[in-house]
Amino acid sequence: MRIHVANPNGTEAMTATIATAARAAAAPGTEIVATTATGAPASIEGPLDGAHATPFLLDRIAGTQADAHVIACFDDTALDAARALVRAPVVGIGEAACLLATQLADSFCVVTSAAISVPVLEANLRRTGLIARCAGVRAAGVPVLEIGGHAAGAEDPVAEAVRRAARDHPGAALVLGCGGMAALAGDLSRELGRPVIDGVAAAVVLAEGLARLGHRTLRLA
Amino acid sequence: MRIHVANPNGTEAMTATIATAARAAAAPGTEIVATTATGAPASIEGPLDGAHATPFLLDRIAGTQADAHVIACFDDTALDAARALVRAPVVGIGEAACLLATQLADSFCVVTSAAISVPVLEANLRRTGLIARCAGVRAAGVPVLEIGGHAAGAEDPVAEAVRRAARDHPGAALVLGCGGMAALAGDLSRELGRPVIDGVAAAVVLAEGLARLGHRTLRLA
Amino acid sequence: MRIHVANPNGTEAMTATIATAARAAAAPGTEIVATTATGAPASIEGPLDGAHATPFLLDRIAGTQADAHVIACFDDTALDAARALVRAPVVGIGEAACLLATQLADSFCVVTSAAISVPVLEANLRRTGLIARCAGVRAAGVPVLEIGGHAAGAEDPVAEAVRRAARDHPGAALVLGCGGMAALAGDLSRELGRPVIDGVAAAVVLAEGLARLGHRTLRLA
Amino acid sequence: MRIHVANPNGTEAMTATIATAARAAAAPGTEIVATTATGAPASIEGPLDGAHATPFLLDRIAGTQADAHVIACFDDTALDAARALVRAPVVGIGEAACLLATQLADSFCVVTSAAISVPVLEANLRRTGLIARCAGVRAAGVPVLEIGGHAAGAEDPVAEAVRRAARDHPGAALVLGCGGMAALAGDLSRELGRPVIDGVAAAVVLAEGLARLGHRTLRLA
Amino acid sequence: MRIHVANPNGTEAMTATIATAARAAAAPGTEIVATTATGAPASIEGPLDGAHATPFLLDRIAGTQADAHVIACFDDTALDAARALVRAPVVGIGEAACLLATQLADSFCVVTSAAISVPVLEANLRRTGLIARCAGVRAAGVPVLEIGGHAAGAEDPVAEAVRRAARDHPGAALVLGCGGMAALAGDLSRELGRPVIDGVAAAVVLAEGLARLGHRTLRLA
Amino acid sequence: MRIHVANPNGTEAMTATIATAARAAAAPGTEIVATTATGAPASIEGPLDGAHATPFLLDRIAGTQADAHVIACFDDTALDAARALVRAPVVGIGEAACLLATQLADSFCVVTSAAISVPVLEANLRRTGLIARCAGVRAAGVPVLEIGGHAAGAEDPVAEAVRRAARDHPGAALVLGCGGMAALAGDLSRELGRPVIDGVAAAVVLAEGLARLGHRTLRLA
Repeated sequence: MRIHVANPNGTEAMTATIATAARAAAAPGTEIVATTATGAPASIEGPLDGAHATPFLLDRIAGTQADAHVIACFDDTALDAARALVRAPVVGIGEAACLLATQLADSFCVVTSAAISVPVLEANLRRTGLIARCAGVRAAGVPVLEIGGHAAGAEDPVAEAVRRAARDHPGAALVLGCGGMAALAGDLSRELGRPVIDGVAAAVVLAEGLARLGHRTLRLA
Repeated sequence: MRIHVANPNGTEAMTATIATAARAAAAPGTEIVATTATGAPASIEGPLDGAHATPFLLDRIAGTQADAHVIACFDDTALDAARALVRAPVVGIGEAACLLATQLADSFCVVTSAAISVPVLEANLRRTGLIARCAGVRAAGVPVLEIGGHAAGAEDPVAEAVRRAARDHPGAALVLGCGGMAALAGDLSRELGRPVIDGVAAAVVLAEGLARLGHRTLRLA
Repeated sequence: MRIHVANPNGTEAMTATIATAARAAAAPGTEIVATTATGAPASIEGPLDGAHATPFLLDRIAGTQADAHVIACFDDTALDAARALVRAPVVGIGEAACLLATQLADSFCVVTSAAISVPVLEANLRRTGLIARCAGVRAAGVPVLEIGGHAAGAEDPVAEAVRRAARDHPGAALVLGCGGMAALAGDLSRELGRPVIDGVAAAVVLAEGLARLGHRTLRLA
Repeated sequence: MRIHVANPNGTEAMTATIATAARAAAAPGTEIVATTATGAPASIEGPLDGAHATPFLLDRIAGTQADAHVIACFDDTALDAARALVRAPVVGIGEAACLLATQLADSFCVVTSAAISVPVLEANLRRTGLIARCAGVRAAGVPVLEIGGHAAGAEDPVAEAVRRAARDHPGAALVLGCGGMAALAGDLSRELGRPVIDGVAAAVVLAEGLARLGHRTLRLA
Repeated sequence: MRIHVANPNGTEAMTATIATAARAAAAPGTEIVATTATGAPASIEGPLDGAHATPFLLDRIAGTQADAHVIACFDDTALDAARALVRAPVVGIGEAACLLATQLADSFCVVTSAAISVPVLEANLRRTGLIARCAGVRAAGVPVLEIGGHAAGAEDPVAEAVRRAARDHPGAALVLGCGGMAALAGDLSRELGRPVIDGVAAAVVLAEGLARLGHRTLRLA
Repeated sequence: MRIHVANPNGTEAMTATIATAARAAAAPGTEIVATTATGAPASIEGPLDGAHATPFLLDRIAGTQADAHVIACFDDTALDAARALVRAPVVGIGEAACLLATQLADSFCVVTSAAISVPVLEANLRRTGLIARCAGVRAAGVPVLEIGGHAAGAEDPVAEAVRRAARDHPGAALVLGCGGMAALAGDLSRELGRPVIDGVAAAVVLAEGLARLGHRTLRLA
């Protein structure tokens, strides 16, 4: 099986990070093809970056033969358009992470990068209906490209935000609200003793499942 | 005051129709500047057309000085991105029509062009919360560019669909779910004795109002 | 065009304040006719005051020729009854303010006068469906007739409550939850750098728009 | 215990009907005091009648010593105002009927008198949250004062509407959406083999229960 | 009339407490039959205890002749199954308490025993639709069987949690989220000057009312 | 990887059918262990059957070592209890089918066996929040154990019900609302040209994904 993981931004380094997370999550025998939306903004922060990234992202999706596609930005950039573009299933990492969270706890709390993304995610949650299970969306106050880039010895502000969310919502699974946060999931899950969900991994397993079952997106005319 | 009415598709004739509806709705002294998203699809039918139209549409919005902008496709194409692009208020004709409908009746029913647009509009209604007041979204089964193009003497299938919606939902205002249906509003409203709402007109008065009050879209960083 | 702004309470001074805000918001050429519900309670605080004010308010609406009517209490006193009384559109300042807020930000937060009004506003938000976009309703702890009446040199407790709401909800537009707070909107909006919405102004532009388009409220038998 | 059943309209004959239903529902030892809102419209059909009835209704509630009050119109006329007026519990027959329905079936369907009442009831259901369990509100097309007045030998149009609702919603309890329909409940329930709920009876038992427990309505200042 | 109050856990002492609360709430002439689900867990904390208790609880319900049944655990253990088992009405104390709360205030806040029960109650509130009126569910951090067992002279941690909930939600009725908290209701209601609702009492009056009206649960095949 | 597929009813033949569907859906290398809840009712029709099946089902789950568990009844029998019983992820076929449906279409329509199951599924959809995307739940009018057992040459009533649902909801994915309908999915999907989703397959891929990522259910105390 071949899963296309499309990084909607133009930063190759981030594609590499995402591809690593995707490969770690994939089943044996699944080929992960990761693409960069070269020409798109360097990171997707807010709906305008998402719009600017869309044509480049859709080009990658149209041009990449795959059994299923993953859109690897937590905003689920251009997800509906991609689902109208190809018949193979398309999964967004934001929606996928929240879907898996509902299987592990009664509610979930999302910790994203910067404040500009919070209303994007809240609008997505209303659109999908997942808002019914969401205990909150909060920002760590860190721009996407600075995630993980805190000074050595300093506390990771994203991890700190996840810990605070855990304290405030004892019954919630924790969802990492940015594709660049994948590396934190394992350690934080062990530390906090509860599900900490990375969207790239979530989307890969969901995409594999949809593809294995031979499902295709409903096409209307 | 200057209101920019942006037709997100590439069909000049449709821009002319929309501009006429906009000017008929505008206050004395309001200048309507209508633009065409030349390069965009000829009509917006479904999310993929919307995505393809977005860069051209955003170019028009960025490049047109105005006190407020109207996005003149009932899908509210790229509305969030446009609101992140300029500080002047941006209004979509779909959301505007439904908002006005809530002021005139307890519920509303949308009649759009073709089936492909129904899920787009339903997702928008969930995203905005207007779904709480919506009695249904139905398609007339007519592609956008064929609206009004029925054979002389034949019943207009859009008008027929609106009449059926009126029969099925006695307490609902009727919302015309496509920018190209504006010409039907007056006659159908008189015939049916209840509000029949065109989104272009609705969006123009909402945009004028927001602009007159000096409101600007919230900007997050 | 002639817009009737009906103050549902019996305090002439408040009518004057409201009329000033309405005239500042109206288009050139719009005549604002402001009436006082003489005989009604001096202020509307809670549902009982609203009920007591209703006959006087409806008398003003029935007796005032206008292209549209505005009910100038944030509780939207007797709004459904007024809409059944006259065919001209009727707009409540509470609903209007929240509707405009949804055009400027993903969510909104309401700051009203005293605690007694909070459940009234929350019930209205559930009834209209606007609750889906509401980040909270809070009281400044100031009775309606004492708004603006803080000691010289003292902090305005309403402004303080708005600032706190802004801090707690970074992505929310701020809605002033009482007709008597209109004078605060401009300064607070500049200070906070985000939309601060006065319902009187919001309702006037919405009423003008509905009237200009010739819409009439749906009448059922 | 003394329960005040307030008929919000001015028709003594309807008060008598309601009082009979209330006494049939009450526990032994409960005194039912039924009042007529003399001066109010002869029937409450739509929000304007409700507003006109309100001062007369509130006078009866303020002037009648009771352990709990029932507002005997399915619109729940002035319910919030009445709850702010007296500390004794106040129950509306519309809300009470729907509450009991949720104890007997997963969903309920309301059959009311005329179309004008449908949006009133739907708005109430959104306000209370009971809409989550409602399978529909439909009108029998019979004005309130003509209920039961069909020609001898003719089918009762209200009973017919209830039967149709039962066919369309196999899993729903049936709620009689008008105080004047009480006499139908028993026969229809036996005929259809499922719960058919009269609001007067429902409200009486709820009011008795609240009163027996000594509960008082929350008062805010 | 005969009301069966079924304690779903196996602790006789708790049955005695519940029976006392039920008898204090019942009308004169109502016989309260209280049973213990001997064989069930000693307390119901979380969904697993609920599942283990279910066969014993259903045995009691099937084996006890009554005009209505009350399930006396705030989780509303096996409520749907019990309603499918017998035709007499079945009421859960959790749902009953929240229903009565909606008659006394615009919103309610639940204080339950331990954190493990919070997601159970939140899922129930979503299932019934009562979530629309719920201001929050919080845990006092006290296991069910230790309620009331704090050291003499020490503050009761449940009462403390109720007081905090009252401070945080000025407009909310307070709901005691465990059958073992009944004894607190009266004193806390007087102290806080607002409704504090015990589910056992709430369910008894609701069950009596449903039974008196002769209602039976809808049976589907 | 080892996935335990637990048939909550006591019919071995149905376990075999379910196991076949599960193995067809599983990844290479996944071992499917299918168990029968011997002692449980022969089929699960309505909440009472579900309650009776629960102890046998939980015994199988506790006694079967697996990386994840699937509960193979569309009612998601005892799902919350199972999630509290083991730390390995537990997936219900009803919830899983609807989750996958949201990835393939904007809405979904469920076709279940008999009317008795409709309210169970609707309550589950409200509890999970998936109701926001559900266009309807309908019954084919066929008891679980008679699915597929129509006379040779006669139309399959389940397939007929799915076709009707497809006609009524052009934009909806179709969900087969019973574990015994799996064999229909492929043919109906090809015939109708849109997603037809079997819950067993859906749950297996979801369970595999959760297990592969090492997720464990949140445990509260």
